Amino acid sequence: MPKSASPDLIQVDWEPIGKRVQIEAGKTLLAASQEAGIELISICGGIASCDSCKVKLISGVLSVPEFDETNMLYEDEIDSGIRLACQAVPLEDVRIYVPAESLTTPQRLQVEGQSVEIEIDPVIKVVEVKMDEPSLTDLRADAKRLKDALEAEGLNPESARISILKNLPEQLRSQEWSASAVVRHEEIISILPPKSKLFGVAVDIGTTKLAAYLVDLENGETIAKVGDMNPQIAYGEDVISRIAYTNENKNGGKVLQESLVESLNGLFETLCTETKITTDQVVEVVAVGNTAMHHIFAGLPVKQLGRSPYVPAVSEAIDIRANEIGLRIAPGGYVHLPPNIAGYVGSDHVAIYLATDLWKEDRVVVALDIGTNTEITLAAGGKLLSCSCASGPAFEGAHIHDGMRAAPGAIERVQIEADEVRYQTIANQPPVGICGSGILDIVAELRKAEIVDKRGGLRKDHPKVRKNGKVPEYLLIGADETGHGRDIIVTRKDINEIQLAKAAIRAGVEILFNRANISAEDVDEFIIAGAFGTYIDVVNGIRVGIFPDIPITRFKQIGNAAGVGAKQMLISQKRRRIAGEIRDQVDYIELTTDKSFQKEFMKAMYL
Amino acid sequence: MPKSASPDLIQVDWEPIGKRVQIEAGKTLLAASQEAGIELISICGGIASCDSCKVKLISGVLSVPEFDETNMLYEDEIDSGIRLACQAVPLEDVRIYVPAESLTTPQRLQVEGQSVEIEIDPVIKVVEVKMDEPSLTDLRADAKRLKDALEAEGLNPESARISILKNLPEQLRSQEWSASAVVRHEEIISILPPKSKLFGVAVDIGTTKLAAYLVDLENGETIAKVGDMNPQIAYGEDVISRIAYTNENKNGGKVLQESLVESLNGLFETLCTETKITTDQVVEVVAVGNTAMHHIFAGLPVKQLGRSPYVPAVSEAIDIRANEIGLRIAPGGYVHLPPNIAGYVGSDHVAIYLATDLWKEDRVVVALDIGTNTEITLAAGGKLLSCSCASGPAFEGAHIHDGMRAAPGAIERVQIEADEVRYQTIANQPPVGICGSGILDIVAELRKAEIVDKRGGLRKDHPKVRKNGKVPEYLLIGADETGHGRDIIVTRKDINEIQLAKAAIRAGVEILFNRANISAEDVDEFIIAGAFGTYIDVVNGIRVGIFPDIPITRFKQIGNAAGVGAKQMLISQKRRRIAGEIRDQVDYIELTTDKSFQKEFMKAMYL
Repeated sequence: MPKSASPDLIQVDWEPIGKRVQIEAGKTLLAASQEAGIELISICGGIASCDSCKVKLISGVLSVPEFDETNMLYEDEIDSGIRLACQAVPLEDVRIYVPAESLTTPQRLQVEGQSVEIEIDPVIKVVEVKMDEPSLTDLRADAKRLKDALEAEGLNPESARISILKNLPEQLRSQEWSASAVVRHEEIISILPPKSKLFGVAVDIGTTKLAAYLVDLENGETIAKVGDMNPQIAYGEDVISRIAYTNENKNGGKVLQESLVESLNGLFETLCTETKITTDQVVEVVAVGNTAMHHIFAGLPVKQLGRSPYVPAVSEAIDIRANEIGLRIAPGGYVHLPPNIAGYVGSDHVAIYLATDLWKEDRVVVALDIGTNTEITLAAGGKLLSCSCASGPAFEGAHIHDGMRAAPGAIERVQIEADEVRYQTIANQPPVGICGSGILDIVAELRKAEIVDKRGGLRKDHPKVRKNGKVPEYLLIGADETGHGRDIIVTRKDINEIQLAKAAIRAGVEILFNRANISAEDVDEFIIAGAFGTYIDVVNGIRVGIFPDIPITRFKQIGNAAGVGAKQMLISQKRRRIAGEIRDQVDYIELTTDKSFQKEFMKAMYL
Repeated sequence: MPKSASPDLIQVDWEPIGKRVQIEAGKTLLAASQEAGIELISICGGIASCDSCKVKLISGVLSVPEFDETNMLYEDEIDSGIRLACQAVPLEDVRIYVPAESLTTPQRLQVEGQSVEIEIDPVIKVVEVKMDEPSLTDLRADAKRLKDALEAEGLNPESARISILKNLPEQLRSQEWSASAVVRHEEIISILPPKSKLFGVAVDIGTTKLAAYLVDLENGETIAKVGDMNPQIAYGEDVISRIAYTNENKNGGKVLQESLVESLNGLFETLCTETKITTDQVVEVVAVGNTAMHHIFAGLPVKQLGRSPYVPAVSEAIDIRANEIGLRIAPGGYVHLPPNIAGYVGSDHVAIYLATDLWKEDRVVVALDIGTNTEITLAAGGKLLSCSCASGPAFEGAHIHDGMRAAPGAIERVQIEADEVRYQTIANQPPVGICGSGILDIVAELRKAEIVDKRGGLRKDHPKVRKNGKVPEYLLIGADETGHGRDIIVTRKDINEIQLAKAAIRAGVEILFNRANISAEDVDEFIIAGAFGTYIDVVNGIRVGIFPDIPITRFKQIGNAAGVGAKQMLISQKRRRIAGEIRDQVDYIELTTDKSFQKEFMKAMYL
């Protein structure tokens, strides 16, 4: 490793953020991160009494860890180069990897979903054409003229669609008979001004959250990202209640579809405004989501998803014209909806297979996407076993007394030592509520401190446990310290919500283990996908019992992998083909009819 | 020819109507037609002083024509078996052909457009499938289940469209997993109850009139027909004024399209109600029309059709999803729009090529479709030369003082001898106005009686010519005889309208002759298509100068051949291919820029 140019300055490269900073010798990595504008979490304030600022050395040399630091880390973490940023001091130029969970929420959103390198081969091609002006000796129709020009470029496109033809005469004349022709397979889907740059949008439609990524189709780069809540929440919090809504309301499906499309149109507009492009330049969308979201988005019925044997209307990939569902992109543009696996394992999970290359895995790997619905796949012995569990919205902050979504002022990390509560809020605002990762930490810490027993009951003699009527509750932060002047509390019911959610997930994992006849120790890698899954402290996840107790280094938090997979399918036809092939490799296990589910679920309720 | 079963009775077969009647020996064909319920026109009342009841002997023996009869017919008519029905008496069983122009309007509508025999090979296939019900051991998605069942039938359809998939789960369950799958090329376009019969609609979109034919796709038979006015008349009488409307009104194109689609939906409903089928059983539409009607119907811009060099947006055949333009047929059904030739020679004219087999003609043949716009093609020397002339709506009864469309009470045939006016009205109602064929007869008869001079001026000293202010007018029928108690008159301006219309058509014909370097005498067949063209008296057409003066037997009136061609393309993929190939054989001549047009037009103004 080369030394820095100046002997007094040491260079720190931060990955995957891509920032570089030069610091004075002797400063810690935490100080270096602050100089670089990187928001590492530091619950304890940099005194090595928590492990929230964990980073990993990629190259270069750091100071040897002392007792305070090694005390906070697992041995195999230390072996793999994990350090506390508040303790480690670079001795020469270093390259440091920041795991997403060590970043505050806003910064995490920027780095999540780093993708593997794939060859760029989108379904969309652009061809520049130049035509002769019509004259009395050349009376070819505009469409024929264009087609001839495309054929001269070696293409043989089918007749263009009516939505293109509508604007063609005006466009060709105003563009002086030059154009960028956007071709999808054999079809001309759009005519744009000459030398237009083309973009696609990858969309992840979660039951609770939407995410949209604007991708440059030429180089595959994500140039903007935007997220929002799924507006369908107003019609039901989870998949089951939305299906019920469509069953009970004549145009329910249409109402849900339109509210979703309207939100997506808003997100698309934001993406285009931010990057100064027109919606006409957005020529392809790939949307992934669970099967119910997929069906509602496409305008397909979901009634049959609500009754046994819960089969989808469609499981293969479909292409819908964007204007057929009211999505505002280039008039001839398509929405590609990748295949889904079963009624409760959707295309978002297929996207995760792509993002993780799980489909070609020869080790034993678990991939788990925590959401309102949690999908789990076990890759073992060259096979993929999958299931789905109704984990509910507790991890999104819903159904929790002082719960909130991950927004400024949300408590996202908590440490409880004896009576002292340490916490970190998003954007360092005074606390106003608890988001998913916060409530998980709280339950884990309360259990560790034995304020909560293994059944989830609060120890009534603890000084911070009080009674509200007959129900005990734990005073997390007093009104004098909060942003809204009210106590922030944790109720018995909050703990129970977390127990139900984690038991559903863990029972699913255990049933897959049983089916594949393996045990937790056999797992080589345990992948946690999804926004919430990326924010949580895995150690607390193990402590609470969401995850089996295997070495911490085997866990991998990968962020919104569904979005990453969707982006891959946006820029690569090969990835779309693979998605279709994967689908047929997967064995789906229906948990609702699995005999051992109830037993595993009850067992997993214990903390 | 076998004799009748009863020696006193003679059998008469009427073609192409397909009726048979037995009459007493000695009765005339006119009497026989009345017994058969066939409404032959008989202006003179059966005294051989007009030629309106002309029929043609196909086989058998008729009485020898006497002087009264031969006096009314041309020699070559007699040679080819033409007879006056009021004079000819069958001597044995006979087979008689009734030309459309000898029938009253309502009956003409029933027989017009008899088609050549073509092989039935529609783009639509129907496949009966039976599927297993889903179960926990067979969790295939509904669409996959259907696809597997279709594959078992030897088909390999692409993924079905979203409009089908929307209803699929409900349908398959209510039809107990049996279905008729409607397949178009490789695409499933509709799922219907098992053993459904399938239909198509052929539509002729005229500038003034609409016609729709319901066709059984299994046997190619037309099972119902319905017509209406084109509602776009409210926005302009001819193509030019409709183009102007779209140029001057921001959503003008959309307004015109929607009014047309709404009317067509009404016609389709009538067809379905009459024949007791559902609109879901209508799975394909073929629509022909002139290029402006084609563009407006498809939602294409027409602005460029209004400015030189008048090129279409699209000239090749296009398939549009019916629901994309709001047409209510089976949800996945398509509208096939055959190719057009030029800005003013549309797919309706291509349909005429098919109906007449003009495209493979090796004789010299003229085909002419008289309408608000008149398209003319000359087949000569293996080539097709075409042009278009703005003949205006006079022949549809518009712009004529007492003009009306061909409805009950309309004067459709007129004979003027000295001061006596004989006439026939539609449905034998008291006269209320004059339709196109009537006004043509009147101008021809007034010219013959020398009440009108060759410039179109009325002879002011004629007792029935009176003055209205400064303008002379001819009193056709006095108020005491009419259905509405008002005089029916013919003005100088009426005669001028007919002069303008016929001059436009004749100039077009002459220019094609000049281009091909032939003269009228070289024409082997002169085909007159279109509703108006079928109703007119060809002799009067020659007299007025619409048509060149060639032997009457060379003329052939074929009714709505555009509708016939559309029907062919509905039931035969081969005919669609031929339509595409014909297009490229045609040389189009733009009259508006032709140097000799003005001269020919002025010459043709004379009566």
